[in-house]
Amino acid sequence: MTPTITAFRQSPDRGRGLARDMRVRWALQEVGQPYEVRLLTFAEMKQSAHLALQPFGQIPTYEEGGLALFETGAIILYIAERHAGLLPTDANARARAIAWMFAALNTVEPPILERAYAGLFESDKPWHVERLPVLDSRVDARLADLSRHLGRADWLDGDFSAGDLMMTSVLLRLGSANFLERHANLKAYVARAEARPAYARAFADQLAVFSASQTAS
Amino acid sequence: MTPTITAFRQSPDRGRGLARDMRVRWALQEVGQPYEVRLLTFAEMKQSAHLALQPFGQIPTYEEGGLALFETGAIILYIAERHAGLLPTDANARARAIAWMFAALNTVEPPILERAYAGLFESDKPWHVERLPVLDSRVDARLADLSRHLGRADWLDGDFSAGDLMMTSVLLRLGSANFLERHANLKAYVARAEARPAYARAFADQLAVFSASQTAS
Repeated sequence: MTPTITAFRQSPDRGRGLARDMRVRWALQEVGQPYEVRLLTFAEMKQSAHLALQPFGQIPTYEEGGLALFETGAIILYIAERHAGLLPTDANARARAIAWMFAALNTVEPPILERAYAGLFESDKPWHVERLPVLDSRVDARLADLSRHLGRADWLDGDFSAGDLMMTSVLLRLGSANFLERHANLKAYVARAEARPAYARAFADQLAVFSASQTAS
Repeated sequence: MTPTITAFRQSPDRGRGLARDMRVRWALQEVGQPYEVRLLTFAEMKQSAHLALQPFGQIPTYEEGGLALFETGAIILYIAERHAGLLPTDANARARAIAWMFAALNTVEPPILERAYAGLFESDKPWHVERLPVLDSRVDARLADLSRHLGRADWLDGDFSAGDLMMTSVLLRLGSANFLERHANLKAYVARAEARPAYARAFADQLAVFSASQTAS
């Protein structure tokens, strides 16, 4: 049965691949699973039909037969458990790959999102300049730990896994900020992820949605 | 084989059960799995022996035979997958319970931690009073969504699960702030979790560690 995911009809990132549906699209491309997409406006995301699927009014969701799932991490774990390609078969290695998924979402992403949030909503405040070094240092502390762990390896723990998919997706949110310049191995790690054919296909698909929304509006 | 977790030798929360080892202790109590605890000072957490287990220098970790795991979410998922009591047996219900684990860590906890962080590190700043309503509104938006989803149910999706364990642990971080007063069903939900015998045993165990650290120092 072909699953259906939801995505922004008009992504606020303007097709740069930072919306959370990109991560699910990438996972589905990695495992070779075709899928359908239902596009939602911001208004539709806050209506009861969508809230029944996603209590926080966000995208993406994942529907397949009788299952309706939300939270990007949970969706990708579900996909990874049911298809080869995103988790090792060895039980211990599998548990560690899942640990990297949680580390990406719960340890590395929060300070990155806080910094992005401050840039979006507080950059006009007189105290933004005072907060920025603190926000930067919180991001950089995580990156320094991650860089030390990665060392010269290609991926965080053996072969590419759902943990790398999630971690590189999180690091891509740093965008044009200079953080990765300080950690050459992390910069190469992200580039290695972006060079994967499955990433490129997913990126093209989400960009096509945004481009169509611009033509239509 | 008895697993070993790590915890603070002297928890900064002074035994209030907010450190992340509490969540793992609670999960282990729910499933009836005995465990050992290795206590760490802050200095020890940043040394290479611990960084090899936990790249970000945090607690808890989980060691069992040849497996070394980090990230509270990953540890609890590992425990829940291997013992009855924390995940439903039905595959779809199980995926949804895992979604609530991710929602707790990735959607509900970040604004709660940001607010706590500002209270700890920015309360002396002249602009703290201006930021606080924004921080509060971000927390409250999540709680409103969660409260609407929970409705009159006892737990988020059917029986108590690892999703509820994680979500109530996150809500407990609100501490004495008045957020839960605005959502009676969430307040009752947290009280229901705290009333579980496994929670009480885990709480007593972590408090005993803190009390011993006070006697020793």
